[in-house]
Amino acid sequence: MSTTRREFIASTGKAVVAGGLITLAENNQTDMADNKFIHHVYFWLKNPESKEDKAKLIAGLKKLAAVKTISWFHIGQPANTHREVIDSSYSISWCLMFNNDADQASYQTDPIHLKFIDECSSLWSKVTVYDSVDAK
Amino acid sequence: MSTTRREFIASTGKAVVAGGLITLAENNQTDMADNKFIHHVYFWLKNPESKEDKAKLIAGLKKLAAVKTISWFHIGQPANTHREVIDSSYSISWCLMFNNDADQASYQTDPIHLKFIDECSSLWSKVTVYDSVDAK
Repeated sequence: MSTTRREFIASTGKAVVAGGLITLAENNQTDMADNKFIHHVYFWLKNPESKEDKAKLIAGLKKLAAVKTISWFHIGQPANTHREVIDSSYSISWCLMFNNDADQASYQTDPIHLKFIDECSSLWSKVTVYDSVDAK
Repeated sequence: MSTTRREFIASTGKAVVAGGLITLAENNQTDMADNKFIHHVYFWLKNPESKEDKAKLIAGLKKLAAVKTISWFHIGQPANTHREVIDSSYSISWCLMFNNDADQASYQTDPIHLKFIDECSSLWSKVTVYDSVDAK
């Protein structure tokens, strides 16, 4: 949200700028650059019980994280939460943030990304992606 | 990943600590606290073409963002990306980060959250949630 940061600065009266991040110290809430692009990928492994395949995918994602246009990343697995609306059937979550659309587009064709797909795509049976930009 | 921050500090040789965030200045990549909990909710509006309903949901989420245990949030909408694996059928993305499982559990029963559900749940027809913790 383009207005969120201002609202929170206004409500807390305090903001610390550090490397492009805004840290709102009083309630520990943070907001990053405007026009954030969140690229959230969920992988379903072909062999979800295989610790080896899971480790291979995690290792591949760690290498993929070297793509320069990624501003933040998180490699996750399903949390121990179980409500009807929660989909915990996936194996690995790959959450990326970019500072703008162009950085995300560049990531898609980055040689490191293409190498990751080449090396790791045999591990998964399904991928679902949700791309989000600031709501207007 | 519990090892990611150390790896990146080792690889860049530089880290700035600010309010619990680690900012890795050299390549603009950031990683937050270990044991991050990502709670990513996708809402499908009953009336996806209604600008009014979309604005109501966004306004509700802005109020919901006041929950103290939220460490970071983003209110999003589908990006302009169109590949087979991308699900862009949702109306609004609500991406939250918590510093641990307990903070997320607390958010679920926070009075501000319950009020949000009471005031806004009539707006959506479907919600899908993905909860992720650091992959091990």
